[in-house]
Amino acid sequence: MAGKTQQIKVGNQVIGGNDFVVIAGPCSIESKEHFLETATEVKNQGATLLRGGMFKLRTDASSFQGLRSDAFQLAKEVKQEVGLSFLSEITDPRQISDLMDVVDAFQVGSRNMYNYSLLTELGQTDKPVLLKRGFSGTIKEWLGAAEYITKEGNEKVILCERGIRSFDSNTRNVFDVNAIAFIKANSDFPVIADPSHGTGVRNLVIPISLAAAAAGADGLMIEVHPHPDQALSDGFQTLNFPEFSNLMKSLKPLLSSVNRKLAVL
Amino acid sequence: MAGKTQQIKVGNQVIGGNDFVVIAGPCSIESKEHFLETATEVKNQGATLLRGGMFKLRTDASSFQGLRSDAFQLAKEVKQEVGLSFLSEITDPRQISDLMDVVDAFQVGSRNMYNYSLLTELGQTDKPVLLKRGFSGTIKEWLGAAEYITKEGNEKVILCERGIRSFDSNTRNVFDVNAIAFIKANSDFPVIADPSHGTGVRNLVIPISLAAAAAGADGLMIEVHPHPDQALSDGFQTLNFPEFSNLMKSLKPLLSSVNRKLAVL
Amino acid sequence: MAGKTQQIKVGNQVIGGNDFVVIAGPCSIESKEHFLETATEVKNQGATLLRGGMFKLRTDASSFQGLRSDAFQLAKEVKQEVGLSFLSEITDPRQISDLMDVVDAFQVGSRNMYNYSLLTELGQTDKPVLLKRGFSGTIKEWLGAAEYITKEGNEKVILCERGIRSFDSNTRNVFDVNAIAFIKANSDFPVIADPSHGTGVRNLVIPISLAAAAAGADGLMIEVHPHPDQALSDGFQTLNFPEFSNLMKSLKPLLSSVNRKLAVL
Amino acid sequence: MAGKTQQIKVGNQVIGGNDFVVIAGPCSIESKEHFLETATEVKNQGATLLRGGMFKLRTDASSFQGLRSDAFQLAKEVKQEVGLSFLSEITDPRQISDLMDVVDAFQVGSRNMYNYSLLTELGQTDKPVLLKRGFSGTIKEWLGAAEYITKEGNEKVILCERGIRSFDSNTRNVFDVNAIAFIKANSDFPVIADPSHGTGVRNLVIPISLAAAAAGADGLMIEVHPHPDQALSDGFQTLNFPEFSNLMKSLKPLLSSVNRKLAVL
Repeated sequence: MAGKTQQIKVGNQVIGGNDFVVIAGPCSIESKEHFLETATEVKNQGATLLRGGMFKLRTDASSFQGLRSDAFQLAKEVKQEVGLSFLSEITDPRQISDLMDVVDAFQVGSRNMYNYSLLTELGQTDKPVLLKRGFSGTIKEWLGAAEYITKEGNEKVILCERGIRSFDSNTRNVFDVNAIAFIKANSDFPVIADPSHGTGVRNLVIPISLAAAAAGADGLMIEVHPHPDQALSDGFQTLNFPEFSNLMKSLKPLLSSVNRKLAVL
Repeated sequence: MAGKTQQIKVGNQVIGGNDFVVIAGPCSIESKEHFLETATEVKNQGATLLRGGMFKLRTDASSFQGLRSDAFQLAKEVKQEVGLSFLSEITDPRQISDLMDVVDAFQVGSRNMYNYSLLTELGQTDKPVLLKRGFSGTIKEWLGAAEYITKEGNEKVILCERGIRSFDSNTRNVFDVNAIAFIKANSDFPVIADPSHGTGVRNLVIPISLAAAAAGADGLMIEVHPHPDQALSDGFQTLNFPEFSNLMKSLKPLLSSVNRKLAVL
Repeated sequence: MAGKTQQIKVGNQVIGGNDFVVIAGPCSIESKEHFLETATEVKNQGATLLRGGMFKLRTDASSFQGLRSDAFQLAKEVKQEVGLSFLSEITDPRQISDLMDVVDAFQVGSRNMYNYSLLTELGQTDKPVLLKRGFSGTIKEWLGAAEYITKEGNEKVILCERGIRSFDSNTRNVFDVNAIAFIKANSDFPVIADPSHGTGVRNLVIPISLAAAAAGADGLMIEVHPHPDQALSDGFQTLNFPEFSNLMKSLKPLLSSVNRKLAVL
Repeated sequence: MAGKTQQIKVGNQVIGGNDFVVIAGPCSIESKEHFLETATEVKNQGATLLRGGMFKLRTDASSFQGLRSDAFQLAKEVKQEVGLSFLSEITDPRQISDLMDVVDAFQVGSRNMYNYSLLTELGQTDKPVLLKRGFSGTIKEWLGAAEYITKEGNEKVILCERGIRSFDSNTRNVFDVNAIAFIKANSDFPVIADPSHGTGVRNLVIPISLAAAAAGADGLMIEVHPHPDQALSDGFQTLNFPEFSNLMKSLKPLLSSVNRKLAVL
């Protein structure tokens, strides 16, 4: 640990270098039209990587669980039409083979930070893994989880801070900006910030994005939807198109003030 | 939810009735001799169900991970020789078929409370599932996880409170005795207490066992080892044989004071 | 620290001996009639010490703050008429001289566990101090706070566990039963349980009272009101008279099972 | 609540306007020489307000408690010689009259956020009050505490986020950057960040300072000492002079990127 952040390629985008990467897209892929419209917009605004959930883990077993395998084909079409590389959450190691030619990086969600079967098998692939921190995962456990991947030979781990649980329900989570700075000082994994989950409140996403960048994050993962109030999941923390455009405009001068710049395609 | 606790049979032991069940055994199965010695002792002291880990989830990827499939045969032999039904942790849905004839109930550990694939597939079996609460799982999320099992048709869910994370590292976890009373008042799932993990401190296991029984728990799950200081995992919270004997002696009058009694074979 | 619990007299009741003490009364003193009625009832049911707030600390500055000095005279009359010793919360060191002949023990609330001026000056009196744990006070800080009192020469400190903050808002607080057992094993201060605040939920007060007694607590502090739904504060966690009577009936056999008994006058 | 941040003058420095204020100085005042040296340096580096503890609240009753009233005269001399206005912590309402001509603003520490006597009496003065958030104070309780001051007529409340408690002891506290953004969006109090306490780790102070500024904080409060390793308190989170100089250099471009600038005398 400790030292210079390693650079990891997702598609042909580098994460962990001087360029700051914005990964954007809907919480869940809802239909081809919806995903294409969102993907096109976030690309036009400067995002260089695409997100979109296909397998959704929900506290309530009867909530929308994502389009699941029905999304595979349309996701492939959209990423090709738009020309962005694509990350999506994997929730079971048996999805690996199907997802291998759908995603450019696997995302492991908070609920699976301790799913060591999943991490071990992802360690046996050669695809990058974006590893979110558990709801109440300590930093030590998070780095321990990363090791389940790297010990199998896959060094391409990207950490993602997404907020932790606290005693205060005023915001959905507490975005742990200390963790960003700690990871940069003490580990060589790149670290991405997810202020959508990290706040759970739409109008806090922009200031917390700037804060994460100022603290040294290597990029952002942002939920965007054409009509957040109609989103099938997480609408309350999702930016609409003008808000996302404002975020991108605010980021540029801030990154420049810390001697970084937005990644471009 | 709410109402009379349902009674669930593990082997021929009923959990959730008036009889209070003690599940005991080592954290990990270390060898046949070790497991047989421990199983014999806990049975002699009055435990009516046997525990013993085969798949261990450890924060550090290089720690002892259990005997895994090497333990299957010896576990079957020991449970038959001793004559106790057996619970053990499952960490991956692909272990279900192998474990079907090894265990009498599946245990889902804290790290897997949000592993909805695992829960869903356990819901498709007809074996009881002991579902531990996540490190920082809310009670609502815990009951939500139980529903992933029951919605598939398997109603045999036994909840297990095993301590939650707090700001105070004085004890490993905070045993949430409120949760025991809340579950009894508001749900019809039986609830077991795990004071070994719930405290993480050997000399607190007996008082917290009594507290859990007083609050209404339907049973205990206790880590026991002939020589806790030599245990391959969790020795600091494991009772030796005389301590376990003291626990069983203390339990009897307490249970009687709340109009319950120890289950017998 | 560690060893045999010291015995501390409040009025002529001993706390910390083999006899288990129940301190009961309203959250706030609302009027002489109300306090007298409640005091008479709790005495009849077996409580041997009386509680009743005069200075209330409320998050909202416009909530009812207690009768304050208007309660002094009526509290003295009630305790004399009923014949019970009386504890009440002190919130400012400048109240010491006024309260000296009103209360038999000072109560320091959670919000003041870190108020070292107050603790230091209480250490210069010879009256017992019941010291509640802070909302998120570690056990080490709690024992450190006790030392601010004892280092001035007043050794009569009684600790009171009243629940801690957690990530789960399902119950108002998490009653830390581990702390009860830890204090008994590692300190010589008596420890009282406050399950009214420790749960914040009326129907959990009885089971958590029993749990605290089973874990080794030296007594209980219970909020009681003739009509909890009309109480000026904390009604949702306050027992009515029949509920308090049920608590006292349940306590007797449980205490006997752990070789203790209810204190009597 | 909500709306435009009010501007509050401390001495002749405005907090809450477009100019970003840096308050710096030692955790504790240790001697006149030490305080003068530190004050001179932080002024030269661009701080426009001076901090320095005289009354220290310590978990351990036998730790250094500050110079207390011995510091009054030297603090007055130093602030005059250096020409900076001065904030210092008040821990008891009876200190108000003595401190009135020593400090230009009162600081209320985390341990006293719930000390409503203190807040009420500060509300009866006309001096600004910098109100730190409690270790585990909810945002609602923090704003409630501010109201104890304002309801007495003193509107000059400056909030200060200083980190909250979490389950992870990796950093001393979790700096709640969400709270900064939330206060700016939903209240009209200015808000200052204290990354020294907010991290408890020296090499995280600079990135978290930048993060706080990016999230909208109106200023910083920073612990600085000529030789942090010899400091009588909090050395592990205190910047030395070159580190403080680096912080000030990093702040300028960042503030400019969010259309703010450093306050000047």
